[in-house]
Formats: sequence, structure tokens, C-alpha cells
Amino acid sequence: MARQFPSTTDLHDLVATAHAMADAARPETLRHFRADLAAEDKTAPDEAGFDPVTEADRAAERAMRAVLAERRPDDGVVGEEYGAQAGRSGLTWVLDPIDGTRGYISGTPTWGVLIALCDEDGPFYGLIDQPYIEERFEGGLGQARLSGPRGERALTTRAPRGLDEAVLMSTFPEVGSPAERAGFEAVAARARLTRFGMDCYAYALLAAGQIDLVIEAGLNAYDICAPIAVIEAAGGVVTDWQGGPAYAGGRVLAAANRAIHAEALALLREVA
Amino acid sequence: MARQFPSTTDLHDLVATAHAMADAARPETLRHFRADLAAEDKTAPDEAGFDPVTEADRAAERAMRAVLAERRPDDGVVGEEYGAQAGRSGLTWVLDPIDGTRGYISGTPTWGVLIALCDEDGPFYGLIDQPYIEERFEGGLGQARLSGPRGERALTTRAPRGLDEAVLMSTFPEVGSPAERAGFEAVAARARLTRFGMDCYAYALLAAGQIDLVIEAGLNAYDICAPIAVIEAAGGVVTDWQGGPAYAGGRVLAAANRAIHAEALALLREVA
Repeated sequence: MARQFPSTTDLHDLVATAHAMADAARPETLRHFRADLAAEDKTAPDEAGFDPVTEADRAAERAMRAVLAERRPDDGVVGEEYGAQAGRSGLTWVLDPIDGTRGYISGTPTWGVLIALCDEDGPFYGLIDQPYIEERFEGGLGQARLSGPRGERALTTRAPRGLDEAVLMSTFPEVGSPAERAGFEAVAARARLTRFGMDCYAYALLAAGQIDLVIEAGLNAYDICAPIAVIEAAGGVVTDWQGGPAYAGGRVLAAANRAIHAEALALLREVA
Repeated sequence: MARQFPSTTDLHDLVATAHAMADAARPETLRHFRADLAAEDKTAPDEAGFDPVTEADRAAERAMRAVLAERRPDDGVVGEEYGAQAGRSGLTWVLDPIDGTRGYISGTPTWGVLIALCDEDGPFYGLIDQPYIEERFEGGLGQARLSGPRGERALTTRAPRGLDEAVLMSTFPEVGSPAERAGFEAVAARARLTRFGMDCYAYALLAAGQIDLVIEAGLNAYDICAPIAVIEAAGGVVTDWQGGPAYAGGRVLAAANRAIHAEALALLREVA
């Protein structure tokens, strides 16, 4: 989505601010990663039975908000841990300090810090940062790239291939409600390979051209805004299961290209 | 398992050889990782429907066998790709050049190179190497450590906690036969958290004290010999679902300690 910005908007400053936020979050998330961390339940057990929140989660969001307060005090903020704070610039940062807290407490290197920049039309720039591997997937404002331990490369989604040749990911096999699970399984039954367990890293792999589809349900806005920006910048398509905007969360279909998006959408559209 | 070796056995050379093999495999696996790799099916579709083999798999095994031929020509070798070659030393290297080929072709950083050293009683030294992250989990011959991008640390499995507080992993939710899946699900239903998708990396996380249990079925010897050595060196317990040796493959129960091993074994023992 090419957007028009007021001439007063410093686009370079937006990008630099996002990187500064991700840099600030890294030590906070790593301080407790693979340490003996007492996870606590934030809510009553949900359908998956478990929703840990960690000190790292909160500390990372505070670190990112401190960067914003210093550099861009007029922007709004919505974060998983500390809620919404309205701004005056027309721009809102949507933050998930640790996406994949279950993976985080299990020691897997596939959780991430999500940072998205949105206007009234949704996200137009985002970062998916994996601090342990030091990988940063970035998309929007003319960029789509991965920087990491093996240098930099452009992010480009896969060219079309049939669903029977496609790799599909979701975070856990229950997916969501029984109807949502059945919808997912209708796609999985026709895909070449289905893999679980990657959290936001699955969206990063989609942007990087490694897989074809990610299908999830029950997401929050802060889970999906950054992936949308990165994937769209890399050439992919992200919608809800009706083909509409996905940035508010809920049911998400992320696809490498329009052709496979259409093939999966035809199977998901009828889910009640 | 403390073993007696003939005085002519150079234990330092065994360790150095294992590291040289892992070092030789790294560039071969990384050359094609996240490249546009044409995976081919090795066999008729199995129960999971898909068994890719890659050029990287074969090149990595050749690289490891070349190190052995040079350094220790009298040892035996069993590898996933090139089969068994008998030795004269009484020692056999068991190699899986890429454990988790499905994860590999999907771009996830959770596949690994597995190297185990066995005598007639099974594995007594092993490496789980993750080339992309540059993490190497090593156990046996008096060592249990992780070396990686964030330095070195000792590997120690978790202290006992109840199954209701435990984190359980397996690679995919089908696990194996319907009976095997049901056995797994009996444990999963009582665990705090179940995660999928990590391949050999799940065993590394168990050795590193991050999770409590890994339960799988249908394994080959080369899938499990290295994990056994690393986990046992870190204080854990690995058996089959009857409590017997697991190094030949099949059904595997890997546990952080004897207490949680017993709790899971009680649920798995009756699986037909």
C-alpha cells in the first residue's frame, strides 16, 4: 500500500525509531531467556490452557515505550502489556514485546519482538525481531529485508505453486474453535507439508520466501500488524478468512502470493 | 554411563574428531539452507506423507565421512544417507546429517546435525549441532555443554516438577500410529504445555534444562543416539516406552529426571 504522508513526516526518523525500539527490547528479552524464569498466568486459563506473561515481556515493552516517549512523543502506542495511549500525530505504534511467550519459556529461538507502525488504514511498516538469533525482518516504507548473523538479504515471497506443493504453518494444531480447526485442516489436508510451533517466526519465513501459507485464529491486533507490513512489503497477501483486512486480529490468512491466497481462501471462507 | 576404554583409546581425539565432523558439515548444510532447494522424495510417501532428502543432506554426510576416513579409519560408521560401514575399533559413529529435513526445507532454524559415538552398549558421546544459529550441544566423556553465539554454558536438565507443571514436546501432533498418538495425548492432557515442531532441537532444549519431556515414535537409531548421549550427560533419562534402551530407535521417552520419567512412563507403558 503506497501511502501519502504529510511533508512534515520524517520517514527516516520512523525507521530509525523502530530500530531503536527493537535494539532497546533485545537486552530485556534476552536477560531472562533460558534463565529460570517463573512464568505467571495473566488470565484464567484460556482454551489453550496457558497464557504466560514474563517480566521480560513487560520490561521489553517499557523499554520500547521509553524510546518513543523520547523520540516521538506525539505518536500513539498500543502494546500487549500496557494498553493503548492515544497520540496526536495520526500515527500509532503497535507493539508485542514477546510474541510467542510459550515458545520463549520453552527456550525455542522462534519468538519475536513485533513493532508495527499504523495509520487509520492499518500497518504500513513493521519489524519482526528475533533477539537470540539476532535476526531482524523488516518491511514497508520501500524496504523489505532480513538482517542477521549471515548478513543482509532482500525479503521476497514465493512465486505461485499449487496448494499440493505448498508448506503451511500454524502455531498449534488446535488453531482455535472446532470450526476454525476444521477450516484449517481442510487446507492442511491438501497442502504438501504442515508444520507447527513457530509463532511469529512463521510469518517471517513467509516473507523470506520459505513457506507458502500461515493460517491462524484468535489473534490480537498486536500479533499481526507487524507481520502484515513485513509480508506485504515482501510481495505477500494477508487478509482475514473472508478476504477483508486482518490488522484488527482474529482469523488470519497470510499467503505468499494472490494465487495461493485465493486457493486457501476458497476453503476458509465458509467457516462459521 | 561410565565406560572403560582400552588404554590405547585417545578420548581427546574422539572429541576433536566429532567437532571436526560437525565443522565440516556446517558449510554443506548452510550452502542450501533457505536457498531455492528442490526437495525430492526418497521413498514412497510415508504416514506423514512427505520425506524430503536434499543435496545438503548427502553432502554433509560425505563431508563427515571424509573426516572419519582421514582421522579414524578403523571406526565403523552408520549414516542416514549412505548406510553402514563396519569398523575394527569397536567404536561406531552414528550420523544424521540433517535431522529435521522438513524443518530445513521450511527455513526454520531448529534442524540439526547429529553425531553420536557408540560402542556395543550404545551411545556414550554425542553432538547436536545447529549450523545456522551456530549452537553446538555436546554431551559425554565428562562433558555436557552448549557453545554458541552467546558463549558457553553447562547443560543441566531440569529438577523434578510434577507433570502438571511440565513442558512436553514432540515434532508433529500425529506422533505415530493411532495408538502411539493416543499414548502421547494421555501425557499431553496432563502436562502444562505441549509444543510441536522442533525436531532434534527439542532434545537439545531438554538437555539445556528448558523443557521436561520429549516423546516421539517411529525414530531411527541415527535420530536418537546423539540426543541420548547429550541428555544423559546433562542428567536426563532416555528410554523406550517400556523403560528399556532407546538407542535402536522406535518409541522414545526423553525426560529431564527420573521422577518425571516415571510419571510419563506409567502412561506410555500400556500403549499397544
